[in-house]
Amino acid sequence: MNKTIPTISDYLISRLQAFGVRHVFGVPGDYALGFFQELERSDLQLINTCDEQGAGFAADAYARIHGLGVVCITYCVGGLKVTNSTAQAYAENSPVVVISGAPGLRERIKNPLLHHKVKSFDTQSKIFEELTVASTVLNNPETARREIDRVFNAALRYKRPVYIELPRDMIKLPCPPTHAPIIAPEHSDPYALQEALQDAQDMINQATQPVIIAGVELHRFGLQDALVQLIEKTRIPFAATLLSKSIVSELNPHYLGIYEGAMGQPNVQKYVEESDCLILLGAFMTDINLGIFTAHLDQHLSISSTSEKTSLRYHTYEGVYLSDFLDGLLEAGLQRRPVVSHPHPEPPIPFEPKNRDITIQQLFRRLNSFVDDNTVVIADPGDAMFAAADMLIHSRTQFLAPAYYTSLGFAVPASIGVQLANPELRPLVLVGDGAFQMTGMELSTAARFRLSPIVIVLNNCGYGTERPMLDGEFNDIPFWHFNFLPQFFGAGQGFEIHTETQFEEALQLAQETTDRFCILDVHLDPHDISPALQRLTTTLGKRVQASAAEIKE
Amino acid sequence: MNKTIPTISDYLISRLQAFGVRHVFGVPGDYALGFFQELERSDLQLINTCDEQGAGFAADAYARIHGLGVVCITYCVGGLKVTNSTAQAYAENSPVVVISGAPGLRERIKNPLLHHKVKSFDTQSKIFEELTVASTVLNNPETARREIDRVFNAALRYKRPVYIELPRDMIKLPCPPTHAPIIAPEHSDPYALQEALQDAQDMINQATQPVIIAGVELHRFGLQDALVQLIEKTRIPFAATLLSKSIVSELNPHYLGIYEGAMGQPNVQKYVEESDCLILLGAFMTDINLGIFTAHLDQHLSISSTSEKTSLRYHTYEGVYLSDFLDGLLEAGLQRRPVVSHPHPEPPIPFEPKNRDITIQQLFRRLNSFVDDNTVVIADPGDAMFAAADMLIHSRTQFLAPAYYTSLGFAVPASIGVQLANPELRPLVLVGDGAFQMTGMELSTAARFRLSPIVIVLNNCGYGTERPMLDGEFNDIPFWHFNFLPQFFGAGQGFEIHTETQFEEALQLAQETTDRFCILDVHLDPHDISPALQRLTTTLGKRVQASAAEIKE
Repeated sequence: MNKTIPTISDYLISRLQAFGVRHVFGVPGDYALGFFQELERSDLQLINTCDEQGAGFAADAYARIHGLGVVCITYCVGGLKVTNSTAQAYAENSPVVVISGAPGLRERIKNPLLHHKVKSFDTQSKIFEELTVASTVLNNPETARREIDRVFNAALRYKRPVYIELPRDMIKLPCPPTHAPIIAPEHSDPYALQEALQDAQDMINQATQPVIIAGVELHRFGLQDALVQLIEKTRIPFAATLLSKSIVSELNPHYLGIYEGAMGQPNVQKYVEESDCLILLGAFMTDINLGIFTAHLDQHLSISSTSEKTSLRYHTYEGVYLSDFLDGLLEAGLQRRPVVSHPHPEPPIPFEPKNRDITIQQLFRRLNSFVDDNTVVIADPGDAMFAAADMLIHSRTQFLAPAYYTSLGFAVPASIGVQLANPELRPLVLVGDGAFQMTGMELSTAARFRLSPIVIVLNNCGYGTERPMLDGEFNDIPFWHFNFLPQFFGAGQGFEIHTETQFEEALQLAQETTDRFCILDVHLDPHDISPALQRLTTTLGKRVQASAAEIKE
Repeated sequence: MNKTIPTISDYLISRLQAFGVRHVFGVPGDYALGFFQELERSDLQLINTCDEQGAGFAADAYARIHGLGVVCITYCVGGLKVTNSTAQAYAENSPVVVISGAPGLRERIKNPLLHHKVKSFDTQSKIFEELTVASTVLNNPETARREIDRVFNAALRYKRPVYIELPRDMIKLPCPPTHAPIIAPEHSDPYALQEALQDAQDMINQATQPVIIAGVELHRFGLQDALVQLIEKTRIPFAATLLSKSIVSELNPHYLGIYEGAMGQPNVQKYVEESDCLILLGAFMTDINLGIFTAHLDQHLSISSTSEKTSLRYHTYEGVYLSDFLDGLLEAGLQRRPVVSHPHPEPPIPFEPKNRDITIQQLFRRLNSFVDDNTVVIADPGDAMFAAADMLIHSRTQFLAPAYYTSLGFAVPASIGVQLANPELRPLVLVGDGAFQMTGMELSTAARFRLSPIVIVLNNCGYGTERPMLDGEFNDIPFWHFNFLPQFFGAGQGFEIHTETQFEEALQLAQETTDRFCILDVHLDPHDISPALQRLTTTLGKRVQASAAEIKE
């Protein structure tokens, strides 16, 4: 073997490192063992999770904090367990590299029934084509380097997941350099950009109450500084969406709050919907972001720019991209506006614990003052997420929630990815009992790697989000003594909480206990829901019930 | 609404009931809530699991025992979590109906970003096309009945999974009867069948040591009685494969044991490989069944019939199917042979527990005598499965293991499906610590529905199957106190076991404790493996290490 030519696995690992990746999440299996050994020999740290699902969510969270995440698993029995987390990464623009071991090419001759095979050897790669922006099977050393470059470029260009399948007899083959792939840098068309900027400048300067909606793409493409400059230059107030919450510090004086239609704070809804010029920057207009379509945004008054196109009123500039448009706005002749009075998040209310049953409202009131500069709040879909919308987040990217795809069970494994990506942060995990029963055992992984999330289990014995929509026994969840988990693992610290006083004591102890995970089992009334969830589920429930009724004739 | 015409959900539920289904496994979600409500109103019992993965495995096991299984989940965040279990059902011929809720058709107009959507509204259905024999999106009441019939027919014809997507605004629409779908009954071509039978009869009658390999399709297509008749008529001895273990009682005097190449008992391997006429009935020749290709079966001496075709020596009869071929063999002029001496499983050796550390060999020796007529052994892939190959199973279909697809984490949720399908059976679950950390928390579901599996955790702090292949820290698993699980759940009974004496006591107590699950945490030396696994991993390890080495130049 020519020592000067890197092997396929050398090259793959070197690319991961070049993009700043330091951790790889996964579960080994025989088709992937050779690559796991290579990873172990490299400077990358392998983070074994209990189940592949946990690895997928952890890699997604790592990507959101760190810019790129990696999950490595074996063929089908591993790969198919990360389809859901990969779908979420796709839906929410999180660049995750899925690396799957696979049967060797020479083992595939005559199409034998090798273990883990489903219909054919390409079943898994066909499935991941549906869930990624680019995929490849590294079945040829001559093209492997080029293929690896191609999928990494796609991951970074689109901030979405990619799939790399590595047949086990390819791992150690040398992969010679090839001519570099031709990747046209995607700059906006200068003429279209100029026209769009002039058009936007006129709209904005003529408006009396312009508002910026700062969307999640600003975060994914690292445009937060440009956003802050634009806001400081123009003094136009801005709102975030639930998916982009903590895009910049929520202490910014020009910040309005979260806009999410009727689900959000009424004063924010009113201010945004009364605007005569809405500037949507990198914002996905998804149903939950829009309060399940209770939002009323007037396209006639809107400017919207994303990584794919820019629209003003009813016309579209296909070749005008967010980053160029935002740069252009900074250079444009936008007026500096007078300071106006507008909604702004209230500072946390001091919490005086009483010896009475704790409610969701009191729980979140207390948590709001608990959040400090190093807290990252990770909320699982459900009331954990909806109630957390009102928490005041101090710094950028310190709130994480799958607010569009809304897959239950994200938060606990996500906390592993987050704390490894940035050890300065202490995760505060907000999770329902239903979601915890899906992936919460990954706290064992947190313990293994000496991480210290504080996990608040909203224990209400059911799928609380569904009860108000359509209830039945199917929404009940069996009771677990979550506070006993540390005994089960032999790690971490547990607290059982019924009252406000108990919660206060536990939270203070958890804050001081920085060398292990803490789990707070908070017993709630099964029918206690936050005001935000109340508003959401009323709307959703109407849709579920209306589903068939309308067409019945 | 016309009361005489059933709705789509009425019709779907009535078809499930017509095929004998009594339980539906799943996790609700908003797109599926309406159908969950319909299920709750029906005579079907809903079995909520902790995670969709558990529901998928439980439905697969239910299908293996009961003939058809059903898993019902919501769109994408639920559906994509059962891709792996559906792949397993496909690979191992288990007829599972996947029913997924989905956004209503009217909600899809203008392609909005509804929660749980990935690339497009058909992402999930395209993925399930890769994993099922038939799939449908019920988007038209006029054709819904016919579509439901079509996919059910495919599930039963091929004994493989199917996919039904139910947009939520379709649930309550009336679906009028349509003309019945044209489904040609698949009978063998009579002339081809006659020639194949004559050919087979000559081969068998001329042989001096014929052997039948009874494959899993005999089970899936309900042909065990025909098999027993053939054996009793001809006195030809038979072996099973690991996947078809317990195809009929292993006490049958003509039974040789499990044939799995060098992995199996040497005397069975020798007898089978010395045969001058191998009659393979419904057998998949998969790698693990064949001891990772350590088997030596001579095609020149083989007759092989499956649900798809029949082959003799090197020629194939495309239109000759297993059930007709087997019926034909029963009618053919096959000689009745003299009783010959051949390998047969040894009766269990009485176990005399000593106060010493327990080993895998002693553990399985004891379990072998523990098995009675109502025990169903469910083995998870790994040493749990390989060692269990040698256990003596009393009755038909009382051994279950995913011996081809080998997805870790099947056994615990499978025990739920098995015991609901046949409450007379008591599951004995054999599972490694790694697999338990993936899906073992579904014991909570067992407790919820008052089931009573006995779960033996082979706790060796690692992926024991992988250590001998290629070891590293990635094969380590964090320690859980499995015996504390009952305290965590507030249900079940736990035992911590280090010695043979402790194991004996715990097993006896577990046998008497029939009203709850019992979990036996058996501490094993991390490097203690069964003789069968020793043989397998030596072979597998060679393949992993040989992977790249051979091509390096």
